Amino acid sequence: MKIALAQLNPTVGDLNGNLEKLRINLAEISQTGVDLVIFPELFMIGYPPRDLLDRNSFIERCEATLEKLVKLSTLYPNIAILVGTITRCRLERGKKLYNSAVLIENGKTLFTQHKSLLPAYDVFDENRYFEPAGEIEIYPFKNEILGISICEDAWNEADAPLPHLYKKNPLVQLSKAGATLLINLSASPYYLGKEKLRLEILARQSRHLKLPMLMVNQVGGNDELIFDGCSLALNCQGEVISEAVQFNEEILSIDSDELKRAAPSLTGLATAPDPMEQLEKALILGIRDYFNKCGFKQTIIGLSGGIDSALTCALAVKALGADNVWGITMPSPYSSGGSVEDSRILAENLGIRFNIVPINTLYQNYLDNLEPLFAGRPMDLAEENIQARIRGNLLMAIANKYGRLLLATGNKSEMAIGYCTLYGDMSGGLAPISDLPKGLVYELSHHINQENIIIPPATLTKEPSAELRPDQKDQDSLPPYELLDRVLTLYIDEGHDALTIADRENFPLKTVSEIISAVNRNEYKRRQAPPGLKVTSKAFGSGRRMPIAARF
Amino acid sequence: MKIALAQLNPTVGDLNGNLEKLRINLAEISQTGVDLVIFPELFMIGYPPRDLLDRNSFIERCEATLEKLVKLSTLYPNIAILVGTITRCRLERGKKLYNSAVLIENGKTLFTQHKSLLPAYDVFDENRYFEPAGEIEIYPFKNEILGISICEDAWNEADAPLPHLYKKNPLVQLSKAGATLLINLSASPYYLGKEKLRLEILARQSRHLKLPMLMVNQVGGNDELIFDGCSLALNCQGEVISEAVQFNEEILSIDSDELKRAAPSLTGLATAPDPMEQLEKALILGIRDYFNKCGFKQTIIGLSGGIDSALTCALAVKALGADNVWGITMPSPYSSGGSVEDSRILAENLGIRFNIVPINTLYQNYLDNLEPLFAGRPMDLAEENIQARIRGNLLMAIANKYGRLLLATGNKSEMAIGYCTLYGDMSGGLAPISDLPKGLVYELSHHINQENIIIPPATLTKEPSAELRPDQKDQDSLPPYELLDRVLTLYIDEGHDALTIADRENFPLKTVSEIISAVNRNEYKRRQAPPGLKVTSKAFGSGRRMPIAARF
Repeated sequence: MKIALAQLNPTVGDLNGNLEKLRINLAEISQTGVDLVIFPELFMIGYPPRDLLDRNSFIERCEATLEKLVKLSTLYPNIAILVGTITRCRLERGKKLYNSAVLIENGKTLFTQHKSLLPAYDVFDENRYFEPAGEIEIYPFKNEILGISICEDAWNEADAPLPHLYKKNPLVQLSKAGATLLINLSASPYYLGKEKLRLEILARQSRHLKLPMLMVNQVGGNDELIFDGCSLALNCQGEVISEAVQFNEEILSIDSDELKRAAPSLTGLATAPDPMEQLEKALILGIRDYFNKCGFKQTIIGLSGGIDSALTCALAVKALGADNVWGITMPSPYSSGGSVEDSRILAENLGIRFNIVPINTLYQNYLDNLEPLFAGRPMDLAEENIQARIRGNLLMAIANKYGRLLLATGNKSEMAIGYCTLYGDMSGGLAPISDLPKGLVYELSHHINQENIIIPPATLTKEPSAELRPDQKDQDSLPPYELLDRVLTLYIDEGHDALTIADRENFPLKTVSEIISAVNRNEYKRRQAPPGLKVTSKAFGSGRRMPIAARF
Repeated sequence: MKIALAQLNPTVGDLNGNLEKLRINLAEISQTGVDLVIFPELFMIGYPPRDLLDRNSFIERCEATLEKLVKLSTLYPNIAILVGTITRCRLERGKKLYNSAVLIENGKTLFTQHKSLLPAYDVFDENRYFEPAGEIEIYPFKNEILGISICEDAWNEADAPLPHLYKKNPLVQLSKAGATLLINLSASPYYLGKEKLRLEILARQSRHLKLPMLMVNQVGGNDELIFDGCSLALNCQGEVISEAVQFNEEILSIDSDELKRAAPSLTGLATAPDPMEQLEKALILGIRDYFNKCGFKQTIIGLSGGIDSALTCALAVKALGADNVWGITMPSPYSSGGSVEDSRILAENLGIRFNIVPINTLYQNYLDNLEPLFAGRPMDLAEENIQARIRGNLLMAIANKYGRLLLATGNKSEMAIGYCTLYGDMSGGLAPISDLPKGLVYELSHHINQENIIIPPATLTKEPSAELRPDQKDQDSLPPYELLDRVLTLYIDEGHDALTIADRENFPLKTVSEIISAVNRNEYKRRQAPPGLKVTSKAFGSGRRMPIAARF
């Protein structure tokens, strides 16, 4: 049987647009003698639809769209369609929806399999909407017996290095029931290393069950989440026979008979081998899709001469094109001459529009206005924040005037400890690098400079500084970034406490405790931060839900 | 048997503080001949602990605190303690925690009952952390057979006007097993009318099962959520025999033998009978606890002369005291004389510190700085937002300088349609009235003025205006607030679509569609809004999770 895996990029909620994308691809694929085309999990709706699924009117429109698809299938009578969508749960008690894979052929729904394992951790909330499948069944189709599962269904593998949250392994059930071909519809979001983990788990399932497996994953950015694709065809030994590209749409064609006999390709995997290459592509996709799906074309970015804004700007140019990026540098009395110059060089290297708007008189004007209220109190963070907020106001004014979307430039290390100004440099519609610790910011910047020098060398080598008071350097108020990043990983990603971290890494307990206390104290800032693109296993945002008014 | 219901206000994560609060109350109660004292759901941790429960080090500290409590109980050997906390789930597969009620007496844990029904909707995420109880059991204690359940366990009542999400009714199971007294530990958050719904459901369970019921609810504000208390003792007919106050701590003493015989009190319920009285108390508690639990004492508020900031300020004075509230009015070229005057009168009525900081020169300075970039483009929203953001910057500067927490003053109607400026008037640590539609803002303001005129009559009667351009009135850009609020309720709270709403209410479809489109388009602003106090059944915030980069 000839099968096509349609690794496509839907828009959340855009039922007509997603159906049209399906139709266009179906029309093309149907001319290639394919028997079955498979689309990702919830493809018709886009993943994750979140609380759109709480709206009955939206559910009704989803059902109507599925009916349209069933009708549409009569135009392509020789090809069956397996697609992810929602279906109603008719049980008297329970959630009102299933997360389903629906098999359609020539005007008829042949078979429906609901998702069994519903993730409720990190960014996932599937228990909020879905009832788990009552049972999982095989379906004989052409010369195969299909064993259909949806995303998480394939992840409860005995040796997976993950918490074992579920009692069942649906793939084992499908195998016992006699499946000859495992099919998994996924919407599996990316983080660094995720594609390796995904392959490892699916390959082990396939190998243990001695069954070939096809996995088709969504691709594209949806708010914080980047879906990387990497759809897979595995033989009965769990070896990769074919793999779709990472971070792009692709239709992957497979012959299931050949698949069972095939030896792994020697040309290697399609996945980008270098983590920095991968990270760059992920962020470009995340930025581009956020703009496209929000209806924006152009951005502006505040350039400080520092590495965070330089990296953000370089990524924006790759995502949106130089013509659509506008850099503004806003020197204050405390800005070094180098900062303006480095920003100018960056803009020239990138070929973007560039302007300088000094904030000296505005800053002085604020100080004058506040003088009666500040009553001779010494300069402190208040004055530093005023400068950052003047810049935020200027950038937002330009963004508003020209219908551009402002990008925030903060990294994960500063977001973690609150070394950033709410309503100041935290302003923006999207924070592309807010899940990159400072170390990763440097690594990715060097990677971007590999072919051509884009980010000025001075930006890469000078000591980081917020330049909000005379001769300020980050290292005056922060521990070294290497130590900071290590503590943050152990605390945020791995959940260790101060004592364990200090002990294990031989760091001063006082420093570790201060970092952790800063992380906890600054939850209120992150609550008001723009969405940031998730590229690590534990990002701030919807995957980390912490209380603010708390003591711990 | 003599039983005390300890309706107390814990702080999330503050294990030592909550244990100390328990100890102080236990010491007092133990002198009154009580046999059993009952604390609310997860009292030892504070509800909701959210992703604190993802941290193994935190779980270990919870376990150690429970051990301390067991030891502590030897000091009060004649009184048993039933308290909500987490316990480990030792199953090989599943979530690692239970949400448990633990019965402790004189150094021993007598019995533990886990929660069976785990809410995963609106603000609730309990499937994220907890494994449901394997079974639910009775426990004979003194002359009663206790049937212990936790919050949601009591809500799956056949006739409840709620979605029927669960297959079991744990109270029926407890009754069948022979319970003589139903006990429910709750952390049931407030919204307008919630206490009536809660009573109705519990009373019906009690009546159907012919069993008395004791329910002890958490009280206090935790971030967005306000817990109202209203702990209850019902007789076998589901009649209220005793009820704790709403929005305050109280120890309610009950004799279970008398409870079964008792007729309902004729003096009526302790619940505030007037919705506005209730709403006022709820918001005061929410503000006070947010400040207390975040470690702040003082606030500043931007006063515009309008009703939203006036109401916010009046509530802040009631919550924090006049000495701790500072009002700042920041007139622009477009401010009416009345605005400054009305703000001054409000401040005088409230007896708070008051200052005027005109923004004219700052505004002109921004325009001058931006002139080369704006290149003669006509005035539009960009200039309006500049003014709002100048005010945001000034307020945050004063807040930073004096260690005060800024309150945002936006209401639900403007938050819904985005009639507010991100990083401008949306700035603040908490948005006390952001779940109040404009109509409710007026109603509550009139209520607050009932005894003494606090909010100036001119503020109550003048046409609402943002005063960001010459002669601007809200009604120039918005539909009448009555229509707007009605559409918002039907769309946001009840989930209807434009056609249904226009049809049912006989509103112009175009107007309804424009409102709904504005709600959807402005999700990005709400994502960056400060936490707002939830007082309706569907508030923006953690209970409404919508995508941004979407089309629907």
